[in-house]
Amino acid sequence: MNKGQAITIALDAMGGDRGLPVVIESALEVMAQALDLTLILVGQEDAVVTELRRHGVEPSERLVVHHASQRVEMDDLPSAALRNKKDSSMRVAINLVKEGVADACVSAGNTGALMATARYVLKTLPGIDRPAIAAALPTIRGHAHMLDLGANVGCLPEHLFQFAVMGAVLAAAVDGNPSPTVGLLNIGEEEMKGNEQVKEAARLLAASDLNYIGFVEGNDIYLGTADVVVCDGFVGNIALKTSEGVAQMITHYMKKEFMRTPLTRLAGFVAQPVLQAFRASVDPRRYNGATLLGLRGIVVKSHGAADVFAFAQAIRATIQEVRQALPTRIVEHLGMLLQQRSET
Amino acid sequence: MNKGQAITIALDAMGGDRGLPVVIESALEVMAQALDLTLILVGQEDAVVTELRRHGVEPSERLVVHHASQRVEMDDLPSAALRNKKDSSMRVAINLVKEGVADACVSAGNTGALMATARYVLKTLPGIDRPAIAAALPTIRGHAHMLDLGANVGCLPEHLFQFAVMGAVLAAAVDGNPSPTVGLLNIGEEEMKGNEQVKEAARLLAASDLNYIGFVEGNDIYLGTADVVVCDGFVGNIALKTSEGVAQMITHYMKKEFMRTPLTRLAGFVAQPVLQAFRASVDPRRYNGATLLGLRGIVVKSHGAADVFAFAQAIRATIQEVRQALPTRIVEHLGMLLQQRSET
Repeated sequence: MNKGQAITIALDAMGGDRGLPVVIESALEVMAQALDLTLILVGQEDAVVTELRRHGVEPSERLVVHHASQRVEMDDLPSAALRNKKDSSMRVAINLVKEGVADACVSAGNTGALMATARYVLKTLPGIDRPAIAAALPTIRGHAHMLDLGANVGCLPEHLFQFAVMGAVLAAAVDGNPSPTVGLLNIGEEEMKGNEQVKEAARLLAASDLNYIGFVEGNDIYLGTADVVVCDGFVGNIALKTSEGVAQMITHYMKKEFMRTPLTRLAGFVAQPVLQAFRASVDPRRYNGATLLGLRGIVVKSHGAADVFAFAQAIRATIQEVRQALPTRIVEHLGMLLQQRSET
Repeated sequence: MNKGQAITIALDAMGGDRGLPVVIESALEVMAQALDLTLILVGQEDAVVTELRRHGVEPSERLVVHHASQRVEMDDLPSAALRNKKDSSMRVAINLVKEGVADACVSAGNTGALMATARYVLKTLPGIDRPAIAAALPTIRGHAHMLDLGANVGCLPEHLFQFAVMGAVLAAAVDGNPSPTVGLLNIGEEEMKGNEQVKEAARLLAASDLNYIGFVEGNDIYLGTADVVVCDGFVGNIALKTSEGVAQMITHYMKKEFMRTPLTRLAGFVAQPVLQAFRASVDPRRYNGATLLGLRGIVVKSHGAADVFAFAQAIRATIQEVRQALPTRIVEHLGMLLQQRSET
């Protein structure tokens, strides 16, 4: 994983449903693989050090403990977290990015509070009105990047355009794909369908130099029709959660059928290695680590319920974003597109 | 299936991707089971009769052929179908409902044209501003009804309220559940989340006598958290299509893993009966037949790609709606709720 560039990442050690134990174990796992990586563990100093020692590890130059006295709870209102928890592990981790001490930060904490705090502390990139949440999703062809997944409810066409630019830069950087295809999520492929917001955004995208392929429908997300799928945060969040629900239901019925009789259990035993390989190929944990795109700094959100495997994936995704200098690339590409638009 | 009430259903015999052969075979299958059912096959008379004879069947009193010279194509614009295809099989089938000749009609044709034509010919029920598309979806607990699935883009809170009433009446009638739970699809369960449209709709629902349980998220659809899930047609259509995509992707990866080596193929062979039973339990064809709710008449939309099994299910769902006198029940319940609202 290491390619010679020294990288420092701040981890919100207190965030997430499972908190400290998962963060520390993931940190140690990734550290063992990435030689030029420094991790700053932000949280209650005593608790963090105790948890490290449970693994027989002492704080070091590459594994720094940074004290923060507070913790943002999963049900804290974003406004309250912003106002009352200025020394939370989440806020302090973001501050470290702002101060240039860390190249990026990762948190499994409250999404609303993370977005509000990151936006307040880091500010948005020039040309970006609203940051968006982007994540990679598995598809039949590999994976696609989708945004916004819930940061913005009620977007203007211009916001969708900015999301498209950020998504295309993300796909280019992460996948090494110089011209990723961009689709706009809609309820039909015909130009006359959809609401005014997507129709106007379609006009902006068609006039840009992005590799815009037109409207895509919900099923196209997982068919891999587009490398980047753009939508409003309300729609994106519902599509994402709906996908989780479908997968859970399918798993439920599959288990139920294999558990029905001794004979079906035997069949399940025989098929187990195959079913495991199948589950691994659609395992959402592999795709853990949603990016808060559009900020002057890299902030990655891990799923709140992430386990060690999933949280380590989020740290690895963050390393890749730092290597690719994502925010700088977004500013450059957006500047170029807006320049072109003003010239025409 | 037959409970003594004579029922007449008009079938758009020319609609759908697979057209006449599927409609005729489904019709014959359902006819064999429902003794007091009369089906009116609407379409090109020669073609319909020829197709019947292929099955060794002649038109009869219970299997009437009704000529219609035109066909709505899947890519016809709704407005063009309405204006230029006044003798289409779809339009004539709806006319038969309007004239009281048929109790309901079923079409696998172009959704937009079907909705536009049904609305134009039949008109909406008193108290209903906009008809909605409702369908049953499988859940971990059984099934749930969801609406709107794509008829209305950009709904007012009042429209969502009307959808909730219609959905609750549908669930009560079809499932015999006197007080179905109603959830409003949103991006979080907290009251402060979501857009203004759902927040205001939530206030209307909370003040009604519906069994309103609050906001539900995308994953709740398939967990069966609510018996009725209410949303705007843009969001509903994307959630539905996204679900199809996830299921397709999961099937794709499962097949791929079982086909990988001779050994995994053997495991697949052993597990086949279980996998088949599992597929049957989440088979979307079992849930074919979306209802156009809120019209002065019963119109059911079959999936365009429906096969005989699926189209027959749509006819059966239609029979049930006729038996339950769905439109009358909706008017009664809505009238009662609006009465209560005006009194408070």
